[in-house]
Amino acid sequence: MRVSLTLNQIVQKIGGTIAGEGELEISKVGSLALAQQGAIGFFNDTKYTAQLNASQVSAVVIKLEHQTLTSLPKIITDNPYAYFAKVSQLLNPLAENTYGVHTSAVIDPTAIVPKRCSIAANVVVGSGVVLNDGVVIGAGSVVEHDSIIGENTVLEANVTIKHGSLIGRYCHFHSGSVIGNDGFGYAEENNENSIKRWVKIPQVGSVIIDDHVDVGANTTIDRGAIDNTVIEEGVKLDNLIQIAHNCRVGAHTVIAGCVGVAGSAVIGKHCKIGGAAMILGHLTIADHVTISPGTMIMKSIQKSGVYTALMPVQEHTTWLKTAVNIRHLSQLTDRIKTLETAIADSRNINKP
Amino acid sequence: MRVSLTLNQIVQKIGGTIAGEGELEISKVGSLALAQQGAIGFFNDTKYTAQLNASQVSAVVIKLEHQTLTSLPKIITDNPYAYFAKVSQLLNPLAENTYGVHTSAVIDPTAIVPKRCSIAANVVVGSGVVLNDGVVIGAGSVVEHDSIIGENTVLEANVTIKHGSLIGRYCHFHSGSVIGNDGFGYAEENNENSIKRWVKIPQVGSVIIDDHVDVGANTTIDRGAIDNTVIEEGVKLDNLIQIAHNCRVGAHTVIAGCVGVAGSAVIGKHCKIGGAAMILGHLTIADHVTISPGTMIMKSIQKSGVYTALMPVQEHTTWLKTAVNIRHLSQLTDRIKTLETAIADSRNINKP
Amino acid sequence: MRVSLTLNQIVQKIGGTIAGEGELEISKVGSLALAQQGAIGFFNDTKYTAQLNASQVSAVVIKLEHQTLTSLPKIITDNPYAYFAKVSQLLNPLAENTYGVHTSAVIDPTAIVPKRCSIAANVVVGSGVVLNDGVVIGAGSVVEHDSIIGENTVLEANVTIKHGSLIGRYCHFHSGSVIGNDGFGYAEENNENSIKRWVKIPQVGSVIIDDHVDVGANTTIDRGAIDNTVIEEGVKLDNLIQIAHNCRVGAHTVIAGCVGVAGSAVIGKHCKIGGAAMILGHLTIADHVTISPGTMIMKSIQKSGVYTALMPVQEHTTWLKTAVNIRHLSQLTDRIKTLETAIADSRNINKP
Repeated sequence: MRVSLTLNQIVQKIGGTIAGEGELEISKVGSLALAQQGAIGFFNDTKYTAQLNASQVSAVVIKLEHQTLTSLPKIITDNPYAYFAKVSQLLNPLAENTYGVHTSAVIDPTAIVPKRCSIAANVVVGSGVVLNDGVVIGAGSVVEHDSIIGENTVLEANVTIKHGSLIGRYCHFHSGSVIGNDGFGYAEENNENSIKRWVKIPQVGSVIIDDHVDVGANTTIDRGAIDNTVIEEGVKLDNLIQIAHNCRVGAHTVIAGCVGVAGSAVIGKHCKIGGAAMILGHLTIADHVTISPGTMIMKSIQKSGVYTALMPVQEHTTWLKTAVNIRHLSQLTDRIKTLETAIADSRNINKP
Repeated sequence: MRVSLTLNQIVQKIGGTIAGEGELEISKVGSLALAQQGAIGFFNDTKYTAQLNASQVSAVVIKLEHQTLTSLPKIITDNPYAYFAKVSQLLNPLAENTYGVHTSAVIDPTAIVPKRCSIAANVVVGSGVVLNDGVVIGAGSVVEHDSIIGENTVLEANVTIKHGSLIGRYCHFHSGSVIGNDGFGYAEENNENSIKRWVKIPQVGSVIIDDHVDVGANTTIDRGAIDNTVIEEGVKLDNLIQIAHNCRVGAHTVIAGCVGVAGSAVIGKHCKIGGAAMILGHLTIADHVTISPGTMIMKSIQKSGVYTALMPVQEHTTWLKTAVNIRHLSQLTDRIKTLETAIADSRNINKP
Repeated sequence: MRVSLTLNQIVQKIGGTIAGEGELEISKVGSLALAQQGAIGFFNDTKYTAQLNASQVSAVVIKLEHQTLTSLPKIITDNPYAYFAKVSQLLNPLAENTYGVHTSAVIDPTAIVPKRCSIAANVVVGSGVVLNDGVVIGAGSVVEHDSIIGENTVLEANVTIKHGSLIGRYCHFHSGSVIGNDGFGYAEENNENSIKRWVKIPQVGSVIIDDHVDVGANTTIDRGAIDNTVIEEGVKLDNLIQIAHNCRVGAHTVIAGCVGVAGSAVIGKHCKIGGAAMILGHLTIADHVTISPGTMIMKSIQKSGVYTALMPVQEHTTWLKTAVNIRHLSQLTDRIKTLETAIADSRNINKP
């Protein structure tokens, strides 16, 4: 569903100052590059000035310092991108949920399902589950026994919430995510024939997810081995992420797609972890740490900052030479040492 | 279901020239290494000549230039591997679909479902969905409202197609894939207590998937933030791949498993992207680019070629030394500079 | 469900020697750091001695050599971690399964389902499937036609087993895992307009999974192209792993999360593969090999040992310099060579 609003109506709802025609009607958000008439865009960075000038948007959200760059009708604000997000929320309101339980859903009689819940087709809700007001569950999702789901939390289609998970309010779980799965815990021992085999350690902890957490498609968050796995308030997780047992992810941290966090890692608040980064187990990351994409973190990080570990890309034939040189770096260092000694010796020899 | 065909019948259907017994009956394809009597294999590379000689296959697909390497009955063709693929298709025809809708499927009355469709148990099809002729949907899959699925496209079991996705003809979605999920878009802003938090940017674009696209198991393709995510004709995606919002993947590009493509990346046509490679956002990859497995691409690639970024593997204790040396590479370079100056000086000093 | 046991009862069931109060009652396992009264912990490593001393556990599993480190009641054993795993299994017995088939499950009449099976809501079981005694299938799972599932194997919710998979006894498949999916096999050929396109190679092999194999959430194991994909006895796979077609994973090997194994790789027995490692196709890894997390294996490994390939992490600005130096490593090596020649020359010149 889409609605139209005038610039005046928008600033009335979410603040900001208009420069230009306040009665201009806006029906959608658009990118500067591809938007059409009737759209509002945002401008945040002077490297896009040419794009701003060529844009077909009807209005733009912009900082005070940039307002002279365009003659378009505009809304002036400190943080155009966040403002734009809110305009988009106004123009694209969530569809009204039709509350009720689809006849094909299988709800255990001991589960608590308030009237203001929306349970889609083929959902399965186990015994002792507590759903709170405003919960929405998409088709084919499974909520296992004794889980609690907070107010206004949304499960998209085909989500799996394992037994005993505690989930906050205003969370959003995307399709294919699996929450509260057994962690990966085994002890090695020799059997009677002295063959090493793996003994499963029962995973008796739980998952606790605080309010306003988003979890991407096919992302997995394991339950704790003994204690709990904890995701704090406002954390946003992208797709295909693995959070292992007993991790703690600090409030308002964002993690991009394909990241793995090994067991018992503790990640601070307000961290930003790039795609396909990996964090080993049993280590601690301070608050406000940024980890570059593809970077493997092997020990704790005590200090906020940006951390990177990446091989630079080369044409394959050049890389082959680089790889050989990397394998021989120790010898290279030895050769430099030898040279330094030789030079020092020759200076001594040549000394008058 | 398997069928048997003579070599004559095979060349009648898909071309090529027979050398040897044309009435030989073939009942299955086989690898040179493990095949049994009655199987046809293929030979493409002289490094497998010994394997060819020892093989139990009854016939072989082979290039003209290699035909003297074996006395087996053979089919001669330019491209033995592609020919072999087609023989396998002949010998392993897809099971005839029984068209019809399983009684347990939940189909919205506003959805369009032609007679020649196969809808398995527990499928959920939303309002306004349009399925075209020959569509097959496996058990437990969910197609949300207003999606369109082209002729003869197959969804395996437990696939999720989010609302408003546009999907072409002859596509194949493997189990657990999630198409049209919200992209990962948030704007940072300070709340009233000056604590940074994330404001969700509604993801109002769609996913457009052209004809003959295959999508692997548990692979995720996000919908666009404002504009669309586009997968062009003939793209083949393996398992556990993440394609973020607003990406474009060019026609006939193949991407191996565990790859991540960040937002707004544009990948050219006929590219080959190795497993676990990562492509950062907002960059462009030219046509006919090959990216090695595990390689992180951090900036645009303008020119076709093979690109690599990988640390060479070492025994762990050797690697520890290499890692120290890499951390001190700048100092090594400085030491070389010092040596060069010292040598130049000593030459000047020693000049007669 | 939880039970309480005395130390005496525990050693009666699983061996070990008590030092201290044998009638002490234990109701749960706990970590040394967070446990409360009534819990039993384990102690394995003297680096946790301080933690042991401060711990609130009521008893501890410990090696003979460490027994004097604490005055707590204790059970003495060779392998405290494996012993602890077994205590946890005693204290946290699996819930008794209620055998039977939920009325919403869709079971093909040709499938064999013994009485002692538990089939949850919305499960779909295809034609010709054979389930053995004690099989448990969670809500929303799909078992396609002609698959065989061994005794006491558990499928959690929303698992997909593709047609013709052969699965052993006492296996455990976690939610979202996809077993027996088509492998990623295409042959390239020019079409009539000389545009390269991909011809699908039918994947006619199967998946064979031996006894005691665990498969993590959203992990994918592809069926073979021609021959089979094989997972041997006792293999444990974590979440979000990709095992491609025709791989063989040796007995008792463990693989951590986010690992990719490309087609036809053969991994030995008793290997340990760290998270996000990648193994290229058509190579062989010996028995008892450990691969560090994040390490890309590009060629076969013949010898047991620990293998690593990782860039060390640096602050981003330092890394930028390192990256430049890596790109110029060949030139650095050339400069060292030049210096070595210069030194050798100068020595010759300076020779008396």
